[in-house]
Amino acid sequence: MEASNSNNSSLLILHNTIIFTMDPQSRVFRNGAIVIDNDRIKAIGQSSHILSEFSPLANQIVDLHGQFLLPGLINTHVHTSQQLARGIADDVDLMTWLHDRIWPYESNMTEEDSYISTLLCGIELIHSGVTCFAEAGGQHVSGMVRAVELLGLRACLTESTMDSGNGLPASWGVRTADDCIQSQKKLYEKHHNAADGRIRIWLGIRQIMNSTDRLLTETRDTAKELKTGIHMHVAEIAYENQFVMSTREVEHGTVTYLEKIKFLQSNLLAAHSVWVNETEINFLSKAGVKVSHCPAAAMRMLGFAPIKEMLDANICVSLGTDGAPSNNRMSIVDEMYLASLINKGREVYVKGTTDPTALPAETILKMVTVNGAKSVLWDNEIGSLEIGKRADMIIVNPFSWPMVPVHDSIASLVYCMRSENILSVMCNGRWIMKDQKILSVDEGEVISMAKHASSQLLKRAEASGPNPHALDLHRNRRSFRFRFTSCDRRRADRHRH
Amino acid sequence: MEASNSNNSSLLILHNTIIFTMDPQSRVFRNGAIVIDNDRIKAIGQSSHILSEFSPLANQIVDLHGQFLLPGLINTHVHTSQQLARGIADDVDLMTWLHDRIWPYESNMTEEDSYISTLLCGIELIHSGVTCFAEAGGQHVSGMVRAVELLGLRACLTESTMDSGNGLPASWGVRTADDCIQSQKKLYEKHHNAADGRIRIWLGIRQIMNSTDRLLTETRDTAKELKTGIHMHVAEIAYENQFVMSTREVEHGTVTYLEKIKFLQSNLLAAHSVWVNETEINFLSKAGVKVSHCPAAAMRMLGFAPIKEMLDANICVSLGTDGAPSNNRMSIVDEMYLASLINKGREVYVKGTTDPTALPAETILKMVTVNGAKSVLWDNEIGSLEIGKRADMIIVNPFSWPMVPVHDSIASLVYCMRSENILSVMCNGRWIMKDQKILSVDEGEVISMAKHASSQLLKRAEASGPNPHALDLHRNRRSFRFRFTSCDRRRADRHRH
Repeated sequence: MEASNSNNSSLLILHNTIIFTMDPQSRVFRNGAIVIDNDRIKAIGQSSHILSEFSPLANQIVDLHGQFLLPGLINTHVHTSQQLARGIADDVDLMTWLHDRIWPYESNMTEEDSYISTLLCGIELIHSGVTCFAEAGGQHVSGMVRAVELLGLRACLTESTMDSGNGLPASWGVRTADDCIQSQKKLYEKHHNAADGRIRIWLGIRQIMNSTDRLLTETRDTAKELKTGIHMHVAEIAYENQFVMSTREVEHGTVTYLEKIKFLQSNLLAAHSVWVNETEINFLSKAGVKVSHCPAAAMRMLGFAPIKEMLDANICVSLGTDGAPSNNRMSIVDEMYLASLINKGREVYVKGTTDPTALPAETILKMVTVNGAKSVLWDNEIGSLEIGKRADMIIVNPFSWPMVPVHDSIASLVYCMRSENILSVMCNGRWIMKDQKILSVDEGEVISMAKHASSQLLKRAEASGPNPHALDLHRNRRSFRFRFTSCDRRRADRHRH
Repeated sequence: MEASNSNNSSLLILHNTIIFTMDPQSRVFRNGAIVIDNDRIKAIGQSSHILSEFSPLANQIVDLHGQFLLPGLINTHVHTSQQLARGIADDVDLMTWLHDRIWPYESNMTEEDSYISTLLCGIELIHSGVTCFAEAGGQHVSGMVRAVELLGLRACLTESTMDSGNGLPASWGVRTADDCIQSQKKLYEKHHNAADGRIRIWLGIRQIMNSTDRLLTETRDTAKELKTGIHMHVAEIAYENQFVMSTREVEHGTVTYLEKIKFLQSNLLAAHSVWVNETEINFLSKAGVKVSHCPAAAMRMLGFAPIKEMLDANICVSLGTDGAPSNNRMSIVDEMYLASLINKGREVYVKGTTDPTALPAETILKMVTVNGAKSVLWDNEIGSLEIGKRADMIIVNPFSWPMVPVHDSIASLVYCMRSENILSVMCNGRWIMKDQKILSVDEGEVISMAKHASSQLLKRAEASGPNPHALDLHRNRRSFRFRFTSCDRRRADRHRH
């Protein structure tokens, strides 16, 4: 049921909805309403109160018939550049993953590939209820900017920077710390606060094993100067800590070293942070570092991060999907489900039994909303539904088979909800998906561009890579004895009815 | 594109599809076709060959335009009775889960509740690509039979049996081993091979802590006599093994004891089997026992099963979702993704690093098809697409955003596919879902029946349970400081535009 007034107001009222505000009082309105004025929330409360006050002023009034309304979800670690590489590196060891598959792929990307990859990734993010994401550091930020502007999303975009380390593709092997900093400063000048303020430019460090000390300290100082954030992969694998201990002479690993050089600050978003000890958890906590936990990627490639311990130490932990070749599904909805399962399960190695009470649904819901907003340094404007904040929100249908019956609405949102249940997504006051149709871009067209671009890119990557058959994936699968029988398309066509 | 001949044949041809046969040669037809004659597969091969041979005889020819075709998926551990209880027991410890929530719920079910619960569960199973499932042991098998008959699914149905143990609800505390066996024999006589042979009746043991030795041995002997299977929860939690060691005087736990009393046979489907040691893995392997691995439930409540070790010992391991209150999502598609992640991740505790090569996509795909069929003792008729087998199959759309781009089709099916991609489901030669619309039952009507029945059932359960507020879930959530603000529906209605 929709109603429009003929007045000149731009006010939109959504009412008769269960609102999970995620505000500091964790208020849930069982029959709530929200008033949106352009890109901001003007009022929120019980339907009866809101309607009586704002109906005469509203341009449009929409009855949500008991559907759920909550803040747009925030994905704090996603490689938009890698979306075209989904499936190129499954079931292989980490070195094959990196050297034979991902680096040849990424180093052969064009600006147009980055644009298309981000568009495709953005479609999956929107269907999964995301309104804001933090790019983990990728190729051709200008391509990402174009895509994010078009998609209508909010994002912190970051360039992948590396100025040292072994095995880098030739085109990457020649960048100095100064090149990296200058390039990022230019991006910042050009794109920071673009797209009505939806885009922010962050600084990036791919990982410590590919960074000189000069790159680390310059990044730290430049971020301070520009008042922006730093996104970095931190303590991903056990080997990384060993490497740091042997090359940089510290007692434990990456976090200990970053503490030593005063790199740990409240503007650092540390992705993964799997291999950290108790002392390092304290370092992170004291410095106010934010941690992006990526449960799927962690399980597949890295290990179990001590998330419960970090939360207990008051670290702000949010959730990320990582990139398509590390996870395959780029759904923050699935990561909520996974974060709960994995962290309840991990307790078996701490206590001897799993702990079903660990990371309850409320905690997970905070991780993808308020904690996400803090992690991207944007909590003054997003992460909860409150007066004056930006109008970033999603509508969830709890009445279909994945969620029925709903006995416990918080648990239902975290453990039952699937992307099927996410109906509509608003970012910055604009609907970017309505009734599961993306409004900002043509989904079919993006898919078709993505298929073509990814197959061309893989051909270039294969030609340039160190192993000539590394990306012949059906050949690789055949080694597992799946027998692909070739077809004769023309003959089939001749007989088609 | 569809074409119909006016002849009297019942042959259906599906062509121009990538067919993953899962046959003993693991053949994949890149442009394949399949011929269905009533409830069976008459031919399968390359589109060109099939069309030239069968087109003149076919009643209907359907072009699948490159979509994927694979055997119907098999879910080997699902509590259909528990679907109405989704969300009643999240984030609570195991004893609260069992005594305060699940037992009061299950012991208050009526035959009609079981019927509705199974219908609702069946809808989720079908949307997730399942054509056959093994009921884990529940209430009112006659209700399940009615539902499965209507849904058009294939199932092995099992009654929950318990003849001893502490804390059982009053109505359950009085059954003897003979009661349990007689009740199941009656069910077998009445319903085995019902619904055109789609329904089989199995015997059930809920778990060893609620079973006398007499129930165990009578079940073993009756299953042999009836030539049917036994479904039992085995070695779920560490405490179960301790209990068995102290009460039944064996050295390790449930599996060791079951070996001692010759209960381990090739017709036993052991669910979970988390807490088994090397010796017990050998017992299971030698006896040909099948194991149903339920990754989500294991992570949440039980622990990490040694799946890689079981597969290495040639145990037939399949996948199950468990029940809604142990998992929330009843999607075998999500369990495929989880099984891979969890078992790759678990290696970190064995080797010090995760092993991305553990449980590759091929292995997982076998678990939900051929291994599933072996586990339900039905592999002579289902589990792969082969001439003479039953026509149980699903059509998957790989062209939408969850799967694009598909560089590695096997990995894409296992790691990227979501229920969104499952378009159509055929069981026993009949379409039960087409283009995501369930054809066998009215989805909206079932959802509405389920909402009503579950709320009534919860009221009865709450009245009968040991803890008067155990099922007031919003009250329980409030204890986590979510503040539910009540609404005034009438006032809101008055102001609705």
